[in-house]
Amino acid sequence: MESQTPEWLDEITFDQNGLIMAIAQDRSTNRILMAAWMNRESLQETVETGMAVYYSRSRNRIWRKGEASGHFQSVHEVRLDCDGDVLILAVDQTADIACHTGRNSCFFRVLKDGVWQIVDPVIKDPDEIYSNE
Amino acid sequence: MESQTPEWLDEITFDQNGLIMAIAQDRSTNRILMAAWMNRESLQETVETGMAVYYSRSRNRIWRKGEASGHFQSVHEVRLDCDGDVLILAVDQTADIACHTGRNSCFFRVLKDGVWQIVDPVIKDPDEIYSNE
Repeated sequence: MESQTPEWLDEITFDQNGLIMAIAQDRSTNRILMAAWMNRESLQETVETGMAVYYSRSRNRIWRKGEASGHFQSVHEVRLDCDGDVLILAVDQTADIACHTGRNSCFFRVLKDGVWQIVDPVIKDPDEIYSNE
Repeated sequence: MESQTPEWLDEITFDQNGLIMAIAQDRSTNRILMAAWMNRESLQETVETGMAVYYSRSRNRIWRKGEASGHFQSVHEVRLDCDGDVLILAVDQTADIACHTGRNSCFFRVLKDGVWQIVDPVIKDPDEIYSNE
């Protein structure tokens, strides 16, 4: 028997590249940690395993969040918007570090006085995070 | 004199269609209300006016949020992610209704038991919201 595509997956509107934007939100703090792309395969794996899996456009492959950094995201809820083309994942973030810069969130720059200002601290040096690569 | 492009706008990575995804987050509740696209013009107008302006891909034009519904978003902070290709707007949402379905948030469907289930109420009937069109 061929494996079946879940019906819930068919209700999603993937874009012309077969991707959908997924927003990871910390379920304790409600902070938005990052936004990244998923394809059908990575979304299905995310739902089946409960761990966030994205699709890296730069590397052109499935990207299991935490595979290099150890900073995994366990996924406790998946929401879909009215157009069916954006997802929210409610996650627990390992070490509270979602960003490759070693910060809690990828959204660490705020526009102030016409300049993007960095407002969040680095929790862990990226050289330490990725030292095993 | 020609009008100058602000430097902060040049630091943004627009996609091949000249767009960037913007996530509107309620600054009181931290709930994610919606996600939509902006082009340079709509983002610049958003920052200059303090009111959310998007770019509608379906209508192929600037879309001043609230122009039809009356449900405006005043923007109190703009954040940019590490890749420079996704924005978060911290907003106050008129009537607490961001979605064209009359709900608080566009993200009103949750995946439960393999089905997308609607978990949020309609605050105002869309027929009433858009009755003047």
